[in-house]
Amino acid sequence: MTAPLLLYGHPGCPYVQRVAIVLAEKGVPHERQDIDFQRKPAPFLAASPLGQVPVLLVAGQALFDSAVICEWLDECHAPRLHPADALQRARHRAWMAYGTALLHAVDGFYKARDVQTLEAQRAAIVRLLQRLEAALGDPPYFAGAAFGMVDVVFAPVFRYFDAFARLTPFAFFAGLPKATAWRQRLAARPSVQGAVGPDFVARLAGYIGQQDAVLARQAREAAGHGA
Amino acid sequence: MTAPLLLYGHPGCPYVQRVAIVLAEKGVPHERQDIDFQRKPAPFLAASPLGQVPVLLVAGQALFDSAVICEWLDECHAPRLHPADALQRARHRAWMAYGTALLHAVDGFYKARDVQTLEAQRAAIVRLLQRLEAALGDPPYFAGAAFGMVDVVFAPVFRYFDAFARLTPFAFFAGLPKATAWRQRLAARPSVQGAVGPDFVARLAGYIGQQDAVLARQAREAAGHGA
Repeated sequence: MTAPLLLYGHPGCPYVQRVAIVLAEKGVPHERQDIDFQRKPAPFLAASPLGQVPVLLVAGQALFDSAVICEWLDECHAPRLHPADALQRARHRAWMAYGTALLHAVDGFYKARDVQTLEAQRAAIVRLLQRLEAALGDPPYFAGAAFGMVDVVFAPVFRYFDAFARLTPFAFFAGLPKATAWRQRLAARPSVQGAVGPDFVARLAGYIGQQDAVLARQAREAAGHGA
Repeated sequence: MTAPLLLYGHPGCPYVQRVAIVLAEKGVPHERQDIDFQRKPAPFLAASPLGQVPVLLVAGQALFDSAVICEWLDECHAPRLHPADALQRARHRAWMAYGTALLHAVDGFYKARDVQTLEAQRAAIVRLLQRLEAALGDPPYFAGAAFGMVDVVFAPVFRYFDAFARLTPFAFFAGLPKATAWRQRLAARPSVQGAVGPDFVARLAGYIGQQDAVLARQAREAAGHGA
């Protein structure tokens, strides 16, 4: 196989970051092409039945869905990021799905267009983080010493809370010492840092602050009061 | 290990059906407990961090997310429903995710509360089915002779179209001969039939017909005109 892997991505997508982190952890050579969502090129549309990123082209075959791509990379490229035991591996996959559920709650929070929805999504996030805190074991990572696939999934989710800190005084991680420490260690991991540009959090906060949504409106009002 | 597997389920959930079909195809002994969503019992809430079904209890450990449960069952219980080749297995997992995307479009269609949303979701479903038609190979199943995990995922999705046929004259499968034949073969598979009660489609049509949504309103109006 001479053709390298080709990753179709987008600078702002947390699902693309998962794939970028796994590629970096494993040192897998690849090319990357970021997609302009307003003008999706024909080869991308041919490869992506859902029109979404990430897509990984492998020997002419298109793999889509970030979890699917991460699993394939883990099966075919060392070092393994999943546990060797099947039941523990399944548990880790379940917590990957939990990370996706947290990401959906995060989306619902910053896109909420009325205060009732905003507060419901905020409460959902708090509940999810509290349950996550209870599931965390010994540091430094989700399952102890080894950086694994659950860490891959949560690292991009936690960046949203860096952006939220610029827009709202609400402290999502108050009373969650394990999750706080885990979040900080993930942010310091080179593969996590390298998955986005250096100004990513500022850009993300800017994107969220421009939404036609309650959080953005509250942030603008707070900035106005401070001026 | 003496404790049997315990599946927390719900009679109406298409994700639970995936697990039920896999358990049946593999003949895995298990117990099942259906959850009353209005009164979720404490052991279920302790096992399910997201409060959702399906959950499979394995040796005291809770596996959640239907895709995760299906992967674990396939890794640990013969016969395998996934291809042996890693790249083909990844392709099948991608089409499982595609089935979930179709399910989301189906949900959006019958829950749409204005005509514009209904028509957008209808168009999305049509696009997804057309692309699916192009991806289907030789019969009888998604990947030819062997019933596999992609078949498991689509069988419960196709039941919604049986219910839609009772509520709307729109023919989603018109011009899709391969998908039509595939859908019929899946519906005839014993594991698929056994995953729900005998009156499932009537109950599903009744559930959809009671939604506070455009499709239900149109169906009631059409029934009224006919009387």
